[in-house]
Amino acid sequence: MKLEARFCDVDSSEPMVLLHDDDCLEIGVKENDRVSITGKRTIVALVSRSDTLVEKGAVLMHRSLMDRCGVDDGDVVNVQYAPKPDSVRSIRRKMDGEKLEREEIRAIVEDILENRLSKIEISAWLTALYINEMDIDEIADFTVAMAETGDIIKFDREPVFDFHSLGGIPGNKITPIVVSIVAAAGIMIPKLSSRAISSACGTSDFVEVFCDVLMDAEKLKSVSEEVGGVFAWGGGMNLAPVDDMVIRIEHPLGINPRAQMLASIMSKKVAVGATHLLVDIPTGAGTKVPTLDVARAYARDLMDLGEKIGIHVECAITYADQPVGNAVGPALEARECISILEGQKHPASVIEKACECAGIILEMAGIPNGPVKAREILDSGEAHRKFLEIVAAQGGNPELRSEDIKPGIYHEDIVSTKSGYIHNIHNKDVVAIAKAAGAPNDKGAGLMIHLKKGQRVETGDVLFTIYADNEAKLKRARETAIKYPPMDIEGMLLKRVSSTPLRR
Amino acid sequence: MKLEARFCDVDSSEPMVLLHDDDCLEIGVKENDRVSITGKRTIVALVSRSDTLVEKGAVLMHRSLMDRCGVDDGDVVNVQYAPKPDSVRSIRRKMDGEKLEREEIRAIVEDILENRLSKIEISAWLTALYINEMDIDEIADFTVAMAETGDIIKFDREPVFDFHSLGGIPGNKITPIVVSIVAAAGIMIPKLSSRAISSACGTSDFVEVFCDVLMDAEKLKSVSEEVGGVFAWGGGMNLAPVDDMVIRIEHPLGINPRAQMLASIMSKKVAVGATHLLVDIPTGAGTKVPTLDVARAYARDLMDLGEKIGIHVECAITYADQPVGNAVGPALEARECISILEGQKHPASVIEKACECAGIILEMAGIPNGPVKAREILDSGEAHRKFLEIVAAQGGNPELRSEDIKPGIYHEDIVSTKSGYIHNIHNKDVVAIAKAAGAPNDKGAGLMIHLKKGQRVETGDVLFTIYADNEAKLKRARETAIKYPPMDIEGMLLKRVSSTPLRR
Repeated sequence: MKLEARFCDVDSSEPMVLLHDDDCLEIGVKENDRVSITGKRTIVALVSRSDTLVEKGAVLMHRSLMDRCGVDDGDVVNVQYAPKPDSVRSIRRKMDGEKLEREEIRAIVEDILENRLSKIEISAWLTALYINEMDIDEIADFTVAMAETGDIIKFDREPVFDFHSLGGIPGNKITPIVVSIVAAAGIMIPKLSSRAISSACGTSDFVEVFCDVLMDAEKLKSVSEEVGGVFAWGGGMNLAPVDDMVIRIEHPLGINPRAQMLASIMSKKVAVGATHLLVDIPTGAGTKVPTLDVARAYARDLMDLGEKIGIHVECAITYADQPVGNAVGPALEARECISILEGQKHPASVIEKACECAGIILEMAGIPNGPVKAREILDSGEAHRKFLEIVAAQGGNPELRSEDIKPGIYHEDIVSTKSGYIHNIHNKDVVAIAKAAGAPNDKGAGLMIHLKKGQRVETGDVLFTIYADNEAKLKRARETAIKYPPMDIEGMLLKRVSSTPLRR
Repeated sequence: MKLEARFCDVDSSEPMVLLHDDDCLEIGVKENDRVSITGKRTIVALVSRSDTLVEKGAVLMHRSLMDRCGVDDGDVVNVQYAPKPDSVRSIRRKMDGEKLEREEIRAIVEDILENRLSKIEISAWLTALYINEMDIDEIADFTVAMAETGDIIKFDREPVFDFHSLGGIPGNKITPIVVSIVAAAGIMIPKLSSRAISSACGTSDFVEVFCDVLMDAEKLKSVSEEVGGVFAWGGGMNLAPVDDMVIRIEHPLGINPRAQMLASIMSKKVAVGATHLLVDIPTGAGTKVPTLDVARAYARDLMDLGEKIGIHVECAITYADQPVGNAVGPALEARECISILEGQKHPASVIEKACECAGIILEMAGIPNGPVKAREILDSGEAHRKFLEIVAAQGGNPELRSEDIKPGIYHEDIVSTKSGYIHNIHNKDVVAIAKAAGAPNDKGAGLMIHLKKGQRVETGDVLFTIYADNEAKLKRARETAIKYPPMDIEGMLLKRVSSTPLRR
């Protein structure tokens, strides 16, 4: 039917138009159905209906929809019922527990990308994936479809190595160290990282403290081919773009279906042209991967999927019962990361983890005794020189020093009120304090942890120092630390009792 | 953080506010998270984010949210992260296949009613219900929660009888006949009906051709107690209001989870105070209930659920391979329905079905030989007198005659282009033609079917007549009839072949 297009100021996050109830009856559509709207061009939008917010005879549209439709405020458009995309039928099939064909999976991914599926439909899709899962063939098809609906980078030479951490552990600043060691050994590793999703600081959040992380695919390619490595932000490129769109729906449900998680990781590796991949699986209480059994299952899935899509995958299951190293938060992590490359030895856990991971990659590339070799490259200063080369290529200071990086000027020591041993450090509480202090948005915010698990503490010892860029957030972080103390301090005896098998 | 509230013109169908990306980072919320907004009062809304549609420092809110919050355009409000309702955790539990407690189900229903759950969350809930189902205890809790979150009518006397049809069959105009027979026998039956959801004509759609269907609970109670029966529209009362809210999300997914369907039907019966219920289950190809096995499963579910919630339920599985009677569409069905009450015998299928259903209800009320007695009440004119009493009580003409009701003035006969037997009448195509003609919105629109299954037809015989209130829709309906012929006409031989077991 003919309706008058009217501009409205704000839309929801999906292409929705508002129609009067009577016009909906006339057109034969209900709430959340679709209509085609034809002006100069034809678009499809979801229907929201009302008998008060819109007059009979009008269709309220957001500016972006008007533009796509080629109409202006007051123009007459033709509004008709439009059928659901075929992919809704495939979503139904997954709800019914059926195995989807490659073309069906491809259509779902394309329809999400093109905004042709509503939030309701994407939510049903993710819920069906969560409950009914996908087999490895479907996941492989899903991964390739996610990659191929975005840009795919082709390097002039192979092999192309990549490194990925499942995350979930605070203070995990090893990526630039691993990349620098590997690139120093002459192995190309164009590493893309993410910003924090729910954590206090993603790799890109602290790398951007000392150099640019935003680059396009062309620059990624040229820097990787010339210098051997990058530590760039993946979000600046159009790689597997559907992933981010899905995360917006997954997040409020608090789910991450296995198929979606695997396709999310691996589609970006396909997009970046990786031929070899090491996945770090941090395992421990309070992380995504609580036990060794779960970690092994992830490893098996990732390796199987790699085989299906032609990427050689190996996995490292790493210890994640407490933060990695001492620093949590962008500037603090940047400083600690660089100081290790400069040759400062103190946070042994970070150095060991970085060299183990880099070592596995060296061995994948045919270099024997990888971890020993990796340590040599780090200790000799070669990794540091490579690091500065990459920093310079990403627009940073080629003479960058760790002491150039300053944490927030507001800080406060948190001292122990009792003596004993650090029995536990809760990753979640550490993250909550860093976020309360302003991380990852405030670069200076975070905390330095002075004592780690198993260490002896006396009343009055400083447990950790909170940093912030402003006083209000320092106060907020202190309150969080008091409400959710991140460390359990116990006498040795109690500690022993709580770890006997009898307690389980 | 403090933000300036700004009015925006249109919102989506959920309470959503628009925030700038930077402010979202500062507050610590992502798309589809929740924020509390405090002005004079505190409200909770979902977050939509943008870096172009809204300025930093502002929050765009719809007028209705501003009113609830007690703020005006330009006022400063305090915006903070707000946690998800606990019911999201229960939805997750259903996604994990767990059995929900009564309190959890109650909380989900209340949160839907109060608009505290997003479309994404309700979609996940329905998908989880569809895949993981509920057991009968959960469905009983669900039914009672749906009823108790709306008004509940208490009659001064019992028993209170009710009648329900699962629907899905065109031309099913028996409800006013059943109600009139039952009420004429002195049995109280306050029948609430619905309008068409996806069909061409719901009971309320044709009843409102000759009397008001909109009444409040008070009127329903007084008319039922005085006259013995009503045929009112259920949507005019606040009975199990969550049901309609859920249908808006179910509909685009094309699902109707068993638990939701059962709770939807039975919660309205609880709300209307029914003690005894007969459910008509139309069974046949092209309806919701394709086979006898499916029909028996529905019957078992309904009776089990009735037992749990204290309603005596019986079921009638009825033939639904073709439309009931000859008329489809509001005025046409109204005319056929009244003409039967007046004593015209011709559409035997309608009379038989109505008397069988009314008869079961009479037997439930302790009257022996129910169907025979029902037929006597119809044939004697008692049912017709009771019908006119009810019509008058609902504001209609107490001397209403079937010939007063006129179908659309535009009509066209559709003739057969070959000879043979009516092998099949497709309910879906009949509905599509009636809807193309304008039903149920245009009261005169619909079709009269002149020949039913198994009847002989010669080339040139009129198969059916389409009626419409305007010429354009008549044309559209004719085109639909040509594109999707509702009748299969075959020679007897072919008919036999197609029904042999070998073909299956």
